[in-house]
Amino acid sequence: MLEAMFFIAITAEAMTAALAAGRRKMDWFGVCLLACVTALGGGTARDVLLGHYPLYWVHNPYVLLLVCGAALLTIAMARVVDKLRWPFLLLDALGLVVFTIVGCNVAIEMGQHPLIIIVAGMVTGIVGGILRDVLCNDVPLVFSSELYATVSIVTGVLYYFGLQANLPPDLVMLVAIAVGFTLRVVALILKWEMPKFVYDKDLR
Amino acid sequence: MLEAMFFIAITAEAMTAALAAGRRKMDWFGVCLLACVTALGGGTARDVLLGHYPLYWVHNPYVLLLVCGAALLTIAMARVVDKLRWPFLLLDALGLVVFTIVGCNVAIEMGQHPLIIIVAGMVTGIVGGILRDVLCNDVPLVFSSELYATVSIVTGVLYYFGLQANLPPDLVMLVAIAVGFTLRVVALILKWEMPKFVYDKDLR
Amino acid sequence: MLEAMFFIAITAEAMTAALAAGRRKMDWFGVCLLACVTALGGGTARDVLLGHYPLYWVHNPYVLLLVCGAALLTIAMARVVDKLRWPFLLLDALGLVVFTIVGCNVAIEMGQHPLIIIVAGMVTGIVGGILRDVLCNDVPLVFSSELYATVSIVTGVLYYFGLQANLPPDLVMLVAIAVGFTLRVVALILKWEMPKFVYDKDLR
Repeated sequence: MLEAMFFIAITAEAMTAALAAGRRKMDWFGVCLLACVTALGGGTARDVLLGHYPLYWVHNPYVLLLVCGAALLTIAMARVVDKLRWPFLLLDALGLVVFTIVGCNVAIEMGQHPLIIIVAGMVTGIVGGILRDVLCNDVPLVFSSELYATVSIVTGVLYYFGLQANLPPDLVMLVAIAVGFTLRVVALILKWEMPKFVYDKDLR
Repeated sequence: MLEAMFFIAITAEAMTAALAAGRRKMDWFGVCLLACVTALGGGTARDVLLGHYPLYWVHNPYVLLLVCGAALLTIAMARVVDKLRWPFLLLDALGLVVFTIVGCNVAIEMGQHPLIIIVAGMVTGIVGGILRDVLCNDVPLVFSSELYATVSIVTGVLYYFGLQANLPPDLVMLVAIAVGFTLRVVALILKWEMPKFVYDKDLR
Repeated sequence: MLEAMFFIAITAEAMTAALAAGRRKMDWFGVCLLACVTALGGGTARDVLLGHYPLYWVHNPYVLLLVCGAALLTIAMARVVDKLRWPFLLLDALGLVVFTIVGCNVAIEMGQHPLIIIVAGMVTGIVGGILRDVLCNDVPLVFSSELYATVSIVTGVLYYFGLQANLPPDLVMLVAIAVGFTLRVVALILKWEMPKFVYDKDLR
């Protein structure tokens, strides 16, 4: 079931990336490339940082076709898409928490320190979006918008401590996903944000 | 012969990067650094993604001196350079296809999946330019300009299937390089572009 | 003693990153993330390029807490900070040379080529700042401002050749740090810059 959600998450990330590419008037190839970087960049960054080879998509290259397919489908149905704002945001929220769980699992299997397990989940959840924003020449949204990375951290903490408490793994996973997902959706609706740090002097 | 072309390609990439650095008024050190990132970034990204260590330039550090030398030479002859627009574009096209072949060879030697072989060629061919554009604070050209990544993919596909068909490797390589090079040059002359995806609504 | 200076350096980098984040109105999470990328990004890039696993912060995850703590402290004391311009610049200069020495040491232990030892020191010293600037959507300062990477290279060269000459390692380290630090501070005071390469034609 986690695997099914993982593929849904990858597809959703690919589609939001395709829309971002469209806003930058990229060509079809650029759309596919940005979709791959966004959907697979988080897991790739995690694996490179942890030295966990081979990378997921090198081992299962067909996921590249899935991502490019989802990106091209988004081009085809772009006119319908703006009626789908909420389904998209919900899928993106699901993607965030599912990527987090997958990332934690990789670090747990490698026997990493608890802090690194949480970081691995967060990197998997947010780095794809950061790379998308850097390639689109924006300051990454995750640095300043509604709770996003925080959702990933909360999900990872719940998941890790649930497993530590010897609760049934499937239950722990479901609860972590449900809590993370709900937190993200509520943050979107109520526009919850972290406090901002505003500093306008230039030290240089 | 591939090696000779490889060094020509690295030099050409270093020189185009130096010009990009000049447009951003970088200092001599910045010119060298941007040249290294552009000329060696594609192969570095490929090797990091595939876990293929040591990196080429770590194993052969003198290539760093070649790249910096080419970059500094570009500064010295900047006034001549704008009469050299076409030689530059041709060398850059050669670089793209040669990098692609080199990248495919690395993945083939590692016994990777055919899709990954094509991707490895493409990453080697285009990532240097993407890093150059990100460091210059531009949206990467490869996302929206004339056929570039497509040329790399065509070259890689031809090369891989030629080898699969048991044709003589040297012949396959020459044909793949010739076709890719021609395609790129024709695309430049006729301004062939991939269709663009333009989407101007903001989902957020 | 190198270790003590290393922690001071990491803290200083985290604090300058936090100020950069404040200038971009990032939230508290963004401040912490940018601090981690800036303070640990140089060492991470070096280790990924050299295939030197596990990464420092994966092996010693508590350094993440140190960096986030320093970043949050910077938020709390932001009003005092602009009276601290020079202490900051001095700590940043110390950070640069200390990171350089640490990076050289890693490459020396791995038995790398002298050129790679210098490059490893430079990557450790400057990549954190480059990543900070890219994430803040700026052209990296290091490409065009006062002597910075040059300081790192001078420090690395002195350190390497000092060790080669069989001088006492502690003495070599102290001299390299002192010379590099002084060079950087003098460059800041006298606004020493590398010559710029200005080229304003567009080849495309």
